[in-house]
Order: sequence, then structure tokens, then C-alpha cells
Amino acid sequence: MIKKLLLTSAIFSIFTGVSPVFAEIGNITSPKNVILIIGDGMDDQQVSIARNYLVGANGMLSLDSMPVRSTARVITVDENNPNKNVYVADSANSATSLATGVITSRGRIATSAQSDRDLATIVELATSAGYKAGIVTTASITDATPASFVAHIRRRGCENPSQMTGTNRYGISIDCSADLISNGGNGSIAEQIAVANIDLIFGGGLAHFNKTTLAHDKSVLDIAKNNGYTVITSKQGLDTLKPSTKALGLFSGDTMPVKWRAENNAGPQKPDASILNYVHKYLGDVELPAVSHCENNPSWDDMPSLKHMTDTALTQLSQNNGNGFFLMIESASIDKQSHERNTCGHIGETAQLIEALDSALAFAKSHPDTLILVTADHGHSAQIIPERSMFSDYGIPVFTPGYLTRLQTLEGSIMGVNYASNDFAAEEHSGVNVPIYANKVAKSLLKASVTQAQLFNIMADYLDLLPSDTSTTQP
Amino acid sequence: MIKKLLLTSAIFSIFTGVSPVFAEIGNITSPKNVILIIGDGMDDQQVSIARNYLVGANGMLSLDSMPVRSTARVITVDENNPNKNVYVADSANSATSLATGVITSRGRIATSAQSDRDLATIVELATSAGYKAGIVTTASITDATPASFVAHIRRRGCENPSQMTGTNRYGISIDCSADLISNGGNGSIAEQIAVANIDLIFGGGLAHFNKTTLAHDKSVLDIAKNNGYTVITSKQGLDTLKPSTKALGLFSGDTMPVKWRAENNAGPQKPDASILNYVHKYLGDVELPAVSHCENNPSWDDMPSLKHMTDTALTQLSQNNGNGFFLMIESASIDKQSHERNTCGHIGETAQLIEALDSALAFAKSHPDTLILVTADHGHSAQIIPERSMFSDYGIPVFTPGYLTRLQTLEGSIMGVNYASNDFAAEEHSGVNVPIYANKVAKSLLKASVTQAQLFNIMADYLDLLPSDTSTTQP
Repeated sequence: MIKKLLLTSAIFSIFTGVSPVFAEIGNITSPKNVILIIGDGMDDQQVSIARNYLVGANGMLSLDSMPVRSTARVITVDENNPNKNVYVADSANSATSLATGVITSRGRIATSAQSDRDLATIVELATSAGYKAGIVTTASITDATPASFVAHIRRRGCENPSQMTGTNRYGISIDCSADLISNGGNGSIAEQIAVANIDLIFGGGLAHFNKTTLAHDKSVLDIAKNNGYTVITSKQGLDTLKPSTKALGLFSGDTMPVKWRAENNAGPQKPDASILNYVHKYLGDVELPAVSHCENNPSWDDMPSLKHMTDTALTQLSQNNGNGFFLMIESASIDKQSHERNTCGHIGETAQLIEALDSALAFAKSHPDTLILVTADHGHSAQIIPERSMFSDYGIPVFTPGYLTRLQTLEGSIMGVNYASNDFAAEEHSGVNVPIYANKVAKSLLKASVTQAQLFNIMADYLDLLPSDTSTTQP
Repeated sequence: MIKKLLLTSAIFSIFTGVSPVFAEIGNITSPKNVILIIGDGMDDQQVSIARNYLVGANGMLSLDSMPVRSTARVITVDENNPNKNVYVADSANSATSLATGVITSRGRIATSAQSDRDLATIVELATSAGYKAGIVTTASITDATPASFVAHIRRRGCENPSQMTGTNRYGISIDCSADLISNGGNGSIAEQIAVANIDLIFGGGLAHFNKTTLAHDKSVLDIAKNNGYTVITSKQGLDTLKPSTKALGLFSGDTMPVKWRAENNAGPQKPDASILNYVHKYLGDVELPAVSHCENNPSWDDMPSLKHMTDTALTQLSQNNGNGFFLMIESASIDKQSHERNTCGHIGETAQLIEALDSALAFAKSHPDTLILVTADHGHSAQIIPERSMFSDYGIPVFTPGYLTRLQTLEGSIMGVNYASNDFAAEEHSGVNVPIYANKVAKSLLKASVTQAQLFNIMADYLDLLPSDTSTTQP
């Protein structure tokens, strides 16, 4: 299929003198592109929260206007017994399902549960077949979601050479010593990205690339430059990239700052119950958190928007390219801000996803063989609940035992968002199935309910990346 | 359209001597039917919970296999300011959207917010146009969801003549005095059902019909019998109904008992933290609720299943009927059991919904012009969370501040379900958009995202019930 495409483009080029990229405009065979947009943790609650705030309950987001709606069933297995299901995923195993079509256990980056086999990713399959490929994220590019498309390692926490053993910030122990380059392994995620066959990666994570590698007396960034990457570290750099440059954009030390924050950067709050309420839950009073609104986060000012990175990626990947491309775009901090119970934070990052989607949709108008899929990797704990209890007429204090945001929406109502999966520094993920939104190219490809692994198959089949005898038997 | 149908059936009947109902089997114009199945509170979390328990995470429910997937945006307005949105619905206002196409405020049954105008329901429109119509529910038939299809009243709590003023069990004050028959109103919900133009209603609620009416010295049940209903009160009665009998099935006093309950009928549990944990949340230990499984609820033994009621309804509504029908089927206690934090309870009621759906799908095989839509009226608070925290390696107690079920699934894993929207006797609803599943008849009718009011329009348009000049302008 690729060969046929190349040939068609070449013949078109010979007879018209027009570069193959322009062949797309007519009805002649055009390059096939796949744009996969992942809202990390963006389940239906997140979409409803964003809709209410951004366009009002009567409004429609670009997501809502997409012509095809499906659902992804999120499947995870136990590391110690891969035949056993676990009902809540993390971004590592769910991104691995999307990137490789293989179900794995939590924390794993494109490696199989227990057996620790490296799994071929769609980026690797696509570039081997002559497609261009790119990754755009608001996380560190070494974070679980982007990493699962280009690296293979047993623990997501092994992001740079200094993090190959020890514990991560949530106390989860890490041992990637078998993956050390000195032990014959592929090295940390940053080291693997530095030598990866990919056309562009934009996101945060400069701090991980500034680390000295263990095997060489160089930084990871030096290795990346040796591998042909042009490194940019400011949003201005995005606009000066020459066509077809292999590019590494690192716009912040780790996760990029988010676009929005709560009024006065206030942290999450719990309802404040009176002393009497501690004696019995039906006694005393409760003061609910004050109604607040969202404001711009000044730390975001120097960041490129997800849309800006997306626009540059679409230009870079499509120009002088008769073969098509695969692009993964992630709005990562929908998840991270939900973990931290920052409602404005995750709404702003969903807004960023929608702006990037709008760019992708505009691109697809002039590049009709572009499959656009938008989905989440897993659910999260944020829930819209009544901002005052449905049972408040009862005359006793009724309120959440968790954290509550009472947000003044732009349409003048108050929205209550509850976070109550634990009392720890970070909320849990949820095991709900997640939405899939797609453009009309997906109409004949996408059933009403699929697994995340099947979503990989749909993308890989569309780009003709699977051997014909395996394409129907994969999970 | 209806007239044309009647004519076609009549001509077919004359020339073949075969009753019009058999015309459906060939390619000749067949009656159009709409089956609307509502899982009360059945959001994507509920479907995922049920899937994991009933068929395993790798399995697919009949819901998952339906060919069309869409989403319903749930819209609610403020009673005091109907221009203002409220972000969480109750079953009364959301069922009113589905039944009438008009957005209203919480607690209202097919009446408009503030102005208290009676809103024509799809059951009323359908029966006026010559269709048959039926309602099947596991709630009392006077409960909010079924009531919104056949009655008009300002407060859902006004279920029978003795409940027209006062407070309901959650302390919400009720004043339906203007709706009293003695004041020129339509009376309580039960009184309105008793005189309704409908072919069958099956569910619970006998206690509401045993009340004496205020305007007459008769019970509501007497009035229903005078209006031509054959009353049945046992599941055996379903099998002995004569064809085309106007039937009122009342199989329990109020809500019907549910199919499943927790092991030993154990109530919901919270994690049990040690005293030290009260000193600081990161100190001490916590004992999580024991792992449990589901068992049959003996109180359910005498009840007809939702499938049994559905099968009878499908037979009754389709036989000797060349005109088609509208049938609403509700699995009500998905919501009620979620309010009470009974995981097995709501899983069992989702299983009941799926059995009823299977009957509807089988019916549609031989009655191809049958539109089947499955949806929820609103979201609920139950969430799948890790049954042990994702952060449990941290060495401090991390657990939900709410109620947690740790359920042994049939595939041998443990599923954690969290309920933490409040500490009251009943959990809150959630404001998430809800799934819509449909059969292939819906393919050209249903967009990827619609409001509940638009879902009314789709059903009413399919049955040609809307004047052609209004069908596109309704909300």
C-alpha cells in the first residue's frame, strides 16, 4: 500500500512537476495520516465539566460536534499474573495498549507484563514503513504517555539516567537496572528518545535531557544532537524550524506549566464542618468552599500552547511528504491537575486539547485521508455533583467527605466538582470506559465499543502497517 | 404517515385474509415501534462496573455490542430562573426532557419550570395518533421516570392522594394543593395514571393505588378498574393476560425488591482507620472492607423480572396491532441501589436491564422497523477505583473518605467501587453526560452527541408525531 502510494505520488510528480504533497488536494490518492489525540484522564466527567465551563450546558464543544462516537474499554492486567484483570489503569499501561495493541500491567512502557518483552510501537512501525511520525505533549516527553510510543522499559519512573533505581515521588520502588546501557539494556526513557527514529517530539522534560549518561561522559541532550535532532527550548523556536527538520522541543524542565489556575492560585478545599459535626454527622453546620472562578496562570506565559506545538507539528510532518504521517498529541495535565484537585487547571488543559483538535480538524479539511481519533487513556476521580446537596432541605449538614470546588461558570451558574477517592496528596484514577470521538474517516472503521488495543489495530490497519495475516487476530 | 400505514395494513389484510400484524414479516410497510430503555442512573461507570462483574473486563455486554453509540447531554434549569442552568439533574426533570422534549427543573413531572404548564408526552402523542403505548418499570409506576411519560404535576413526591402536601422522606417540602382534583387539578400521579389513555403499565406501587381518593369515596385502584384496566398483582398474572387487554400490573407496594444483594445482605462499609489515623491522616493503619460477593435477594423471588414484564409488554403491544407502539422500559433501582451504596444491588439491576434489552433486540429481529434506544437519565456517584490505593506503596494509609465495596468478580479479581459524594443516607447524582446505545435503525437518525430533548424529537419524528413545521425547531 505504501509502495503504491509512493509510486502514485512519484508518477503524479513526474507528470505534473508538482511536489507529491500537493497531490492531496485533488481526488488523486493522497497520503494517509493518523492523528491520535489523548486527553490524559479525560473521561466523560471531564468533558462535561469542560463543556459547562467553556460553552455552557446548552453549548457544544468541538468534541461534541465530531461525527463519530465510540467508547474505549480500558483493560489492564496484573504484573504477577497477566491472566488476571486489574480494573484501574495508569497512563503507562493504557498508552501501551494504544501504542502497541498489547495489554500490559501498570507502570510498564511498551513492554509485556511479567515477561518484559519489548513491544513494537505504532511510531516504530510507521517510520519503518516510510511514514513520518511525531509526538506532541504538555508533559515531559519522558512521561508515561509519550514514552509508550517510542521507548521500552519496565518502569515509567526510569525517565533519565539518574532515575534507574530507587523510589519515585509516590514511594513506588523502581528497579530498571537490567535496562541500564551498561547492562546491555536500552537505557532510560530519555536515552531511548535521544536515539529514536522519529521526526519530532515537542513537550517538557529538559531536566531529564540535561542529565549525564552513565555509559558516556555526555548529557542525554548531547546524544540527541548527535542523532540529528535540532533542539529548541522556546516557543519562538517553533516558528523558525526549517522544513523537514528532525526536531526535539523541550520547553520546560519537566511537566509544562498549565494554562489556567484557580482564583488567586487557591488550593483545593474541603467543606468546613463545625465542631458539633464531629460529634455526630447530622449535627452542627458546615461551611462550603467559597464560589470561585478561573484565572490565567502567569507561569504559562512563556510556554507554547498545545495548539502552537500541534500547528508546527502538522506543518513539519506534512510538508515534502508524499507518504503520510502518524502524530500523537497529548494534553497531559488534565490528569495531573485532577490528581491535584485543581478544577480550573484541568478545564484549561481540556480547552488546550480542544484548540489542538480544531487545528487537526482544519488540517483534515485540506488533507481528506486524515484519520482523527480523540480519546482518554483512563478515567479520573473528578465528578460533577450538586454544588449544594440535593438533600439540603433536610435541615442537617449534607456535604462531601472529599474536596469540593464550587465554580462560577461563564454562563452565570455554579458548578460543584467533587474529588473524593482518597485523602492523599493525589487522587486515584477510575476504571470507567472512556469516550472516543472521531472524524468521518473513522465511520467505517470504528465500532461503537472497542478496546484500546483494538484502537491500535484500527490505526495500524489504516496505515497498512500490520501483516495481513495478523491484522485480524491481534487482541 | 399513520394513515398511510393503516391503509396499507388494511389493504394487505383484505387481500390476504392475514391480520395486519403479520405484514411485518415481509418487505411490505411494517408498523414502526419505538422501545426506549432507561437505566436510571446508568452512566458509563455503572456500565463498566456491570461489565467487569457480569462478563469480565475482556467481555462485552449486549450494550457494548449495539451498533450505534451516542451521548446524551443532560440539561436542567433552575425553577426560580428557567434561563439559568443547574448542572445536576434528578429523574423527574431528565425523564421530562426524554418524554416531552422540554427542559424543566428538578422534581417536575412533565410540567414546565416556573410557569407550570402541562407538557404533552410521547405516550400521549403516540396514543392520540393511533399507536399503542406501554410502560414497564421496576420502580413504583408513580415514581418520577414512569410518571413523566403519563402524568403532569409540579412535584414528583405527590404520588397518591395522601401525599399532595407535606414533606417527602428526604425532607423536601411538597405542595401540590393546586393539583388536587378538588381544586380543579388532575390529582396525584396515581390518580392521573388511573384515568390515562395507555395500553399497559407494569411495575410496583400497589400501595399508592390502594389509597382512597379525596374527591370520591373510592380507591385509586377502583378508578383504574372503571377506566378499563385489568389489574394484575402477581407474575403469574402476566402470562394469563388476554390479547389486547388494557393492563395495570402492580407487583409490589412501592419499588420492587431488587434481584441481587451483598453477601449476607451486608450494608455498605467505610474503611476502618485506627485511632492514630484520627490524629493525622498519614499515621496509623486502616482496615479496608472485606472482599465480598453478590447473592440472590430472596425478597425478589415473587417478583416478575424486568425481562418477564418486557416480554409480556412486547406481545401485548404488538399483537393485533398494525400501527406500531411506543414502549418505555426502566430499570429503576440502578439509581436507588447506588443511592444506598449497594454495589450488588445496582449490578443486578443492570443485569435485569440487559436481559430486557435482549428481549427487545430479539423482537426487533422479526419487527425490523423497531427503533431501540438505551440510555440513562442522569449520572450517579459510584466510581471504580483501585481496590487498594495506587499509592499504597508509600507506606502510609491511603483510602477513600467515603464508602468502599471490594467485590470478588466472577473472573477472580477484586473490583473496588467508591461512593463518596456525601455522608448522608443517600448519595448524590452526578452531572456527567450519559451513554446512548441504539440499534441500526438509529444509524441515520442519531448524531454522536444529542441533548435528552433531542432524543425525544428523534423518537417522535420516527413515529411521525410532530407537526412538520415544529419538528426541526423544538429544543
